[in-house]
Amino acid sequence: MPREITAFSNPLVKDVRALREKKGRRRQGMFIAEGLRILTEAREAGRLPAILFYAKGTNHPLLAALIAEVEAAHGDVIETNADILHKLSGKENPQTVLGVFRTWDTSLDRIDRACADLWIVAQALRDPGNLGTILRTGDAVGAGGLILVDECVDPFSVEAVRATMGALFTQTIATTGWPDFIPWLRAGEGELIGTSLNTALDYQEPRYRKPAFILVGNEAQGLPSTYEAECDTLVKIPMRGKADSLNAAVATAVMAYEVINQWRHAGNK
Amino acid sequence: MPREITAFSNPLVKDVRALREKKGRRRQGMFIAEGLRILTEAREAGRLPAILFYAKGTNHPLLAALIAEVEAAHGDVIETNADILHKLSGKENPQTVLGVFRTWDTSLDRIDRACADLWIVAQALRDPGNLGTILRTGDAVGAGGLILVDECVDPFSVEAVRATMGALFTQTIATTGWPDFIPWLRAGEGELIGTSLNTALDYQEPRYRKPAFILVGNEAQGLPSTYEAECDTLVKIPMRGKADSLNAAVATAVMAYEVINQWRHAGNK
Repeated sequence: MPREITAFSNPLVKDVRALREKKGRRRQGMFIAEGLRILTEAREAGRLPAILFYAKGTNHPLLAALIAEVEAAHGDVIETNADILHKLSGKENPQTVLGVFRTWDTSLDRIDRACADLWIVAQALRDPGNLGTILRTGDAVGAGGLILVDECVDPFSVEAVRATMGALFTQTIATTGWPDFIPWLRAGEGELIGTSLNTALDYQEPRYRKPAFILVGNEAQGLPSTYEAECDTLVKIPMRGKADSLNAAVATAVMAYEVINQWRHAGNK
Repeated sequence: MPREITAFSNPLVKDVRALREKKGRRRQGMFIAEGLRILTEAREAGRLPAILFYAKGTNHPLLAALIAEVEAAHGDVIETNADILHKLSGKENPQTVLGVFRTWDTSLDRIDRACADLWIVAQALRDPGNLGTILRTGDAVGAGGLILVDECVDPFSVEAVRATMGALFTQTIATTGWPDFIPWLRAGEGELIGTSLNTALDYQEPRYRKPAFILVGNEAQGLPSTYEAECDTLVKIPMRGKADSLNAAVATAVMAYEVINQWRHAGNK
């Protein structure tokens, strides 16, 4: 049976609130995901919240299913109110359902490169919206997952989880640093493809090999030059205009579709 | 000489603050753009603010250039403080420079389709970030501009101006409704290309003609079926994953690069 919490002073409320900060997530090993849609995606992907909050009076068959499964898994189901949900999520108009999940291992070891032909690697990606968009693009192009290199937006932050619209639960994400990534990459097959302004090679010229690792740089700075030097193939997406760069998620998508289009057509012949 | 305003009660402060709401922008015919970078882009594109606010003590050659030009154009230059800038912009850490610009005519009549081979048309686009990303993509692919159809995010809203990172000033934007757009489109040359899930035609199959109008639908709903029926060519970007849609700005970019890539290669032959 769900228990009820309506007091701001409840220690659990304080603990969950602390998950809005990176420090709190690290200490507790938990994070927040909001909304019935995202929590249902998580459930379908085999991830249940350890704690499920919902606003009293919420009535939805998907919520009923979620409650049943969380209870069956001996999770904590808590009936509460909009004020508490606002306090937990920090949003003016909070979702009526909020889940607290255990974070999971995002080390590079989790990545089995044999399971996909295409991987996306983002370096110092800062914007949660871009993280979400890149995850959705990765899903669309059949990428094995997203490898976050260096100081990126925390994929377990409230903003990032929101922006991924559930893809956090369905896509494989690894977090690492460049000094660890390169030895890992070079220990197996793989072409590292960087997009850059510092090359004349058109992105449609090379024939890309499998597995391909598409490397995209920070939104403001692009890739450091030493990182570009490490790429097997450095290509330029042509730009005709005044601005000198595409949005990072757009560049990733344009590059990824070129790679899979080449393979699609090779397969058709 | 700049005049100084430090009192919240100053009526100008109240007027500018009102520009954060659509009602205020419509009544005054003005909008806010923040930050020296964006204001410098605007200046280079020939747009000067009618009123320029800057924080006392800000020292930058680009600001000096901006002040000189605004004064030469008989604009109002106002030295102020961080508190007032916070009040005007609504941001916790406001930029030290803020401009108040006159809005301009965004009617379809401004669009001369002969000036470009490619145009982007967004229907019911809601997210300011997507607006900004699509404008930057349009710039990169050499599009003539962006036509916003139906109830879209206001390109003059503070969030949209911020997200466009200056592209608002360099790109042509028109706003219209579908019942006006279609007769305008059909009064001249142009292939209307829609991306959709409701077709089997791969987006790389057709040979696209000039001028091409790429039509992208609302982030959540996609295009209404009657709008799809109006398209000359309805194509599908292949998706291999679980999710059923790409981000709207990503879909626009993938489509736009396919179109210009076809033309690039035709030109090379």
